[in-house]
Amino acid sequence: MSLDKQEKTAVRAVTSTDVARIAGVSQSAVSRAFSPDASISARTKQKVLAAAASLGYRPNRIPAIMLSGRSYMVGVVIGGLENPFYATALERLAIALRESGLQVLLMHVDDALTLDSALDQLLSYRIDAVVTSLAIGSKSVARALSQLRIPVVCFNSSLVGPWISTVNSDNHGAGLVAARLMARRGVTCPVWLAGPVRNTASRARGEGFCHGLREAGMPVADLTRLQGDDTYDSGYDAVIGLWKRNIRPDGIFSSNDMMACGVIDALRERMGLLCPRDVVIMGYDNIPQAAWRSYDLTSFDQHTEQMVARAMQLLDEALGAKDTPLSRTHVVDAQLIERGSTACGD
Amino acid sequence: MSLDKQEKTAVRAVTSTDVARIAGVSQSAVSRAFSPDASISARTKQKVLAAAASLGYRPNRIPAIMLSGRSYMVGVVIGGLENPFYATALERLAIALRESGLQVLLMHVDDALTLDSALDQLLSYRIDAVVTSLAIGSKSVARALSQLRIPVVCFNSSLVGPWISTVNSDNHGAGLVAARLMARRGVTCPVWLAGPVRNTASRARGEGFCHGLREAGMPVADLTRLQGDDTYDSGYDAVIGLWKRNIRPDGIFSSNDMMACGVIDALRERMGLLCPRDVVIMGYDNIPQAAWRSYDLTSFDQHTEQMVARAMQLLDEALGAKDTPLSRTHVVDAQLIERGSTACGD
Repeated sequence: MSLDKQEKTAVRAVTSTDVARIAGVSQSAVSRAFSPDASISARTKQKVLAAAASLGYRPNRIPAIMLSGRSYMVGVVIGGLENPFYATALERLAIALRESGLQVLLMHVDDALTLDSALDQLLSYRIDAVVTSLAIGSKSVARALSQLRIPVVCFNSSLVGPWISTVNSDNHGAGLVAARLMARRGVTCPVWLAGPVRNTASRARGEGFCHGLREAGMPVADLTRLQGDDTYDSGYDAVIGLWKRNIRPDGIFSSNDMMACGVIDALRERMGLLCPRDVVIMGYDNIPQAAWRSYDLTSFDQHTEQMVARAMQLLDEALGAKDTPLSRTHVVDAQLIERGSTACGD
Repeated sequence: MSLDKQEKTAVRAVTSTDVARIAGVSQSAVSRAFSPDASISARTKQKVLAAAASLGYRPNRIPAIMLSGRSYMVGVVIGGLENPFYATALERLAIALRESGLQVLLMHVDDALTLDSALDQLLSYRIDAVVTSLAIGSKSVARALSQLRIPVVCFNSSLVGPWISTVNSDNHGAGLVAARLMARRGVTCPVWLAGPVRNTASRARGEGFCHGLREAGMPVADLTRLQGDDTYDSGYDAVIGLWKRNIRPDGIFSSNDMMACGVIDALRERMGLLCPRDVVIMGYDNIPQAAWRSYDLTSFDQHTEQMVARAMQLLDEALGAKDTPLSRTHVVDAQLIERGSTACGD
């Protein structure tokens, strides 16, 4: 069956043959008129575009995908959009991919268990690459991603394997900075509020924090570590748990801003304590709510626009390398954004 | 060129012919093994799946898209993910589409101007339908969408045209309920804080609010109408503007929760006023932050899960109607969620 014949069997679609007939040009001229880099005279292109507009014709990428094996679609695997940080990152990524002439085939995944079938579905559309911000660090996930044999770019991930590149925020470095700031503010009883155990970015923040406290001469062996799950409620509940255990911190570094907001509210509402007067609080992500006046939260900005730009570079290199698997890592500095919660004044 | 030959030219992909050879079955059996509803013996299917797994074969949807003109991809056009409401709605929609065997081809659009080129790109992938939550109500957008000649489902939109169906929150009805609650709380100087002018859902909320105030015997002619842009900052600034004009409201209904949070913070921080003691505040969307203890904001829940379910129904009907354009509207009740900001107690 010829390409032509196949196009005609498609429902609703006006074909390039129709446009060629009306414009009085060859079918190849129609195809060149819609290819950004193809050679075609301005006059012929104009005739084609006019004919296309009159017929409501829109170029069909499907035959080209079939012939080249490249779809110009990138599978974007997401989860946890309730965190404004991920929503903003997705928006920026969608814009950057589109500017590079790539489309986003979006897949929502709850956990590592549903990732496999999600990837199968994406692959049946012959996606060129995968980009994901899922905080899944297991070896089986790395294996599943490597087996796709297409470029994979992960954000804030410790996944390692052929085909897998990562763009990470300098999580460890930010932890160091947080500890030094607490030391400067005279904190003597710091607490670390961790995100989910499987989240390796959170772990790196906590390790950096310990490292920095040790440097500042604080007794890290006594450091209280709280377990949160990245939600506001888990931050709120963690504070109540602390007080039940009779621990009275004067500084809390939270692995993300959502939990830090919960911490601030619990301190004020349940303990009658104010931040920063009684407790110095820091978060991570610099979500919009960190700047809301009820929180005025010191945080770390991951510079998602830079992280997305690095991811686009990695994608470009990996797609250019064709069948050769690349594995690169970029680290982007996280910027300390000081606000009232660490007593920097207004 | 045969389908077979084309498949072989695709980069990296193992073909169904390879699987058929290893499994010792026909190519058609391989195809049936990967079609959910196809007739095939359990034994044959097992042989095919084992061979496919050993080769790393994944079915290729592209030839089927070319032949049938159906891609099982839905173009989802989004904007404004900084509002947690839209982020949650997108997540729910992505899950629902996937459960229906449809994929999300995501397109981020800043405004009506970029919508046209976005739609062209989506159409070149032969998407089956479009779903959008863009608050764009212009006639030119309605025309552009109708001309696609594929089903379009809009959320909270006043767009009208062939092929266009809408799922709306009962915005007018919620406005009525807000006015009645203010009347019960003894509000005598209410203020309406509107979203962007082009946002027809916001307009309907404001009209319902006026309607309800009139019913309650309040002088609607004097109603102060503030113009916001759906952001926290615009709510914060609106309050400062009010005080400059020497208007002292005792009730503010905000077209969304983000602005209402800004209102609460400005009242407390700049005017030293507390909510609900001095001013009763209501929002719309019931975003997670409405429940955060610093805001404790009474709001309207749009029940996105119901709205998404209705959208899926409309999509199903419209896709079933093939080339016949459907135009339907579903309205979903918005539920009042009373919290502290309207003095309902804890």
